[in-house]
Order: sequence, then structure tokens, then C-alpha cells
Amino acid sequence: MSRIVTVAGAQMGPIQRSDSRSAVVARMIALMAEAHRHGADLVVFPELTLTTFFPRWFMTDQAEIDQFFESAMPSAETAPLFEAAACFGLAISFGYAERVEEAGRTRRFNTQILVGPDGRILHKYRKIHLPGHAEHEPWRAFQHLEKRYFEVGDLGWPVVRALGGLVGQMICNDRRWPESYRVMGLQGVEMILLGYNTPRHNPPAPDHDALGDFHNALVMQAGAYQNGTFVVGVAKAGIEEGCELIGGSVIVAPTGEVIARASTLGDELILARCDLDWTRSYKETVFNFARHREPEQYRMIVERKGAVPPDA
Amino acid sequence: MSRIVTVAGAQMGPIQRSDSRSAVVARMIALMAEAHRHGADLVVFPELTLTTFFPRWFMTDQAEIDQFFESAMPSAETAPLFEAAACFGLAISFGYAERVEEAGRTRRFNTQILVGPDGRILHKYRKIHLPGHAEHEPWRAFQHLEKRYFEVGDLGWPVVRALGGLVGQMICNDRRWPESYRVMGLQGVEMILLGYNTPRHNPPAPDHDALGDFHNALVMQAGAYQNGTFVVGVAKAGIEEGCELIGGSVIVAPTGEVIARASTLGDELILARCDLDWTRSYKETVFNFARHREPEQYRMIVERKGAVPPDA
Repeated sequence: MSRIVTVAGAQMGPIQRSDSRSAVVARMIALMAEAHRHGADLVVFPELTLTTFFPRWFMTDQAEIDQFFESAMPSAETAPLFEAAACFGLAISFGYAERVEEAGRTRRFNTQILVGPDGRILHKYRKIHLPGHAEHEPWRAFQHLEKRYFEVGDLGWPVVRALGGLVGQMICNDRRWPESYRVMGLQGVEMILLGYNTPRHNPPAPDHDALGDFHNALVMQAGAYQNGTFVVGVAKAGIEEGCELIGGSVIVAPTGEVIARASTLGDELILARCDLDWTRSYKETVFNFARHREPEQYRMIVERKGAVPPDA
Repeated sequence: MSRIVTVAGAQMGPIQRSDSRSAVVARMIALMAEAHRHGADLVVFPELTLTTFFPRWFMTDQAEIDQFFESAMPSAETAPLFEAAACFGLAISFGYAERVEEAGRTRRFNTQILVGPDGRILHKYRKIHLPGHAEHEPWRAFQHLEKRYFEVGDLGWPVVRALGGLVGQMICNDRRWPESYRVMGLQGVEMILLGYNTPRHNPPAPDHDALGDFHNALVMQAGAYQNGTFVVGVAKAGIEEGCELIGGSVIVAPTGEVIARASTLGDELILARCDLDWTRSYKETVFNFARHREPEQYRMIVERKGAVPPDA
């Protein structure tokens, strides 16, 4: 049985605050139509696809903040995505700000879902590695308040059977942390879908700015190779509300090689025909975990959060 | 106070089975002298520097096997290394096969030590991720019997104060595993020293052969960036007993950038002036572990050795 999944990474150009959900959904559907014409089985969109990257602003009015959140999925505004997926016979993965009533209170997460061609939600992930800060830091050119607006995800990194293989998701900053990939690798993941919004400028570390694209590719390539999995990383890119977001969307093979890469900072489709059986050569040899891992030696990874240097 | 360490990576060309310890030590001292002339503070040599990479052969006669091991360090044959280190005012790191009487029995490890200019052993590491296999597999063009000849290292990945900073070591296959770097990152490591012997040809996965140099650099660059540390990776390279070993020795900055790289497959010195304070920008921002790690979510990393896919 063939296990080839033709994947489209649907990089999106900037989404301004004034852009309506409907306008964004229309752009997404245009990309889905193009993906369909190219024989895609799956289209992957960025983190927080439906709105501008609002954690760049400090806001205190919860009603204002909640305008960026979805309290139903699908909603009237997002239902056309599900309908287009059905029409085109496509699976889609996209991110959004999720507001939900759970455990007797309102909770907010940075979420990404994988929706099947039948409209069923096949996989849901809530971002665990929230970057940035929780309090207003006026010295920054712009804020990065994910720790303020979202809770840490509470679903772990599940891997599910979908698209003929084993699929997981992560979001943006998760990709810089090898633990994110490894937890899915330990579930046999064959394809990781992830979206990101990554400012070119990192206010606390401007010396990193020139390396943004390099770091972006480096971590996904390493994560793919070290776990024998495809990684599909899709950017929201370009100048959004005066803030430059890097592009560099990629599809990475289990070899660690980039097999498709965006070359613009706008709406752009990248495509790769991914044979999930290419994962086997890595999972069964150099990264045969059962043969080669030494979990007893890794305990510090879970027993310690911050770095603790040895005594002087 | 300056925290600049001038590092020399001393890649070594092949060492044949017939090469005596003294001949190897003489080559090492020649590289140390050259490093000293270039103002180095530290010289890093490959894994199992003192002998050919003997796990390529299946042997059953323990006396034959033990010819490749050191039962004292220094010994009469290796003492000149310690003397040269003192004479040149250099620290040196090198690997060797260690045979030791411990816990009432003879134990054998794949070991790497860091020796100070005063001849003191500042750091000792015993390889944890032993690659290859334990039984004779005659179908291979050559064997990779590290799992037969060595025990898994029992010292963890310690980080010590040395060279004005925080230093750790790993060996060869350890560099492919993000856990190795992370355990040291969680101790604040600023420079990781590692040697390797990596055959160009991987008998169980010949499709990886063309990517050997790429994978070698990829894992060290990712490990450096993701932990905000220098990584010094040094090869034994070239055609050794008919088996090609990759070169590609590198010094990697905490940015993940390669700042020095060997371009031959022979004895070759690479040099970089490493300011240990360059680690801070990464350790204090994007990889500020205390702020951003989520250890509760990583438990599978220690609770599971092999991959377990979800139920069908």
C-alpha cells in the first residue's frame, strides 16, 4: 500500500488587524484550491492563521483580546474552510486562538488542528512552549505576550493515525526545543505539522536577528533527522502591522534535508511528495530508540527546569 | 575578566593497526606544538585517539582485544602527552579505550579525558550512546562492535569548571542525541568537547552514506544553538584499515554557526578564539530554561526507551 502523502505548505503573507476573518478564509481557500490542482492531500497553514499576530500588543480589555479568539470551531466564519476541505478532498492543518469553557472556567490556548477531508477534527494540539513574557515591557519595539494571553497547552504532544501514517503537531517556539520532537518520536511520529509567526527582530537579543532563517531551518532539520520524521513548517511572513515576520517555510525529509522551501514573504504554496516509508531507514537503524536510547541517563531533563551550574 | 579560550581541534588522519602508541603520541605532540604556536589554550583530539578504530573487527581473544585498551592513564607510552601539555601550557582532551578494575571486576569503557596544563585530569567521561551491535554480523563489510567491547558509561554527563568556564564532554554517537547536549545544558555547559570515528559507510543504511558530513554538522550545530554552548567536534578521518572515516571536524559557536572547519582527511589543526560570554545571549533569552522549559511535558523521554505507536 502506498504511503505517499502530497503535502502543501501554505505560507501566508501578513494579516493586518483590519483584515476580516472572511478575507483571511478566502485567501486560505484560494491556497487550498491551488493545492488541490497540484494533487495535494494535505495543506498546512501557519500558527494563528485567522488573525494578525496579536500578542505583539499589550491589551487589558478582555473583550478586545477576545476578538482574536475563536469560541467555536467551526464557526460561521470558519465553516467555509471545512466545506472547501470536503469539496477538494483535502486535509488541512491550521492554527487559531482557542477560547473554551472547561473545568468551570474560561481558558485560552494557542491551538492547531488537523481537519480531515470529511470535516472531522483528527488531531488537536495546544501550544506548550509559550515564548515571550506576561507583563508589559514598554522598552520593546513590540511585545510578545504569549505568556499573558495563553495558558500552557494541556494535551501533551499526541500522535494519531491519520493520512495513512502517524501524525503530530507542534507550534512555533516548540520547534526550537528537541523535547517536542522527541516526545512525538517516542510515539513513532512520521510527519509533524507546525505553523509559526516569528518576528525577524528579537528585542531582548537583537544579535540573533540576522540568523533567524538559519535557526528556523536548523531546528526543524535536526528534529526531523533525529526522530526520522517529516517536518512541515509553515510561516506567516512579511510586514505585519509594521513588524517583520520571517518566512522560510519548509518541508523537511527524515534525512534532515529540506525538500521544499518558500522563497517569498507572501502567500506561497510549497509542495512535496512525501513517502512516509522514508522514515523507516532512520527509525530502524541509527535512531532505533529501543536499541540505542539510554533513558536512565536522561533524568535531569525532567527533574530540572532551569540550568543549575555545578558548585564553584 | 576575559573568558576567551583559544581552541584547537586536532583532527587526526588514519591510524593503522600496525601504528605503535608511540608513533601516535608523536603525531599528537606535533599537533600540540603547532597549536601552541598559534596561541591555543586547549587541544581536542578524536575518540579513541591512541589506536585504530578496533570495533570494526570481531575478536574473541580477550588478550587481543585488550591490546587496544589502556589500563593506566598516564602510562609509560602516554606520559609524553602529559609532559607536552605541561611544557606548552595546554589543556588537552582525548579519547581512549579504558580498562579498569572496579567493583571487583574488569570493566571496559570508551572514555575521553580533559587534562589540564598541570597534568591533572579535570574531567572524565565514559561514552553512553554506544552504537552498533554486540554480535558478529558477517554480512557487514566491517563490524561496529562497540556494544560488545564497551559497557555503557556510568558517569553521566558531568559538567565541570575548567578553562574559565563550564566544560563537558561527549563522544561520537552521543552527538546525534539531543539528550546528551541537554543534560549538560541543564548544568550550564559553555563548551562541549567531543571526538568521533564515523565510518562513511553505514552497512545497515547505505542510503545515509552520502549525507554523513551533513548529519555530522547538523547535530552539532543544533546541539550548540539549543543549549547556547560551544561544541568542538574532532574526527579521526581518512582511510583506516580500508574503512573510510569522515572528517569534517568543526568548532561551533553558541549561535549554531560553524566558526572553524577542517577541509582535509588528515592530521589538521582548526582554530577558533571562543569567548565563553557569547553563550549568555542564548542562555538568557530564547533558551532561558527556567523561563521556558516545561519538564512536566517531557516525562515520556525518561519513561519510555523505544518508540510505541498509538493503538491502531
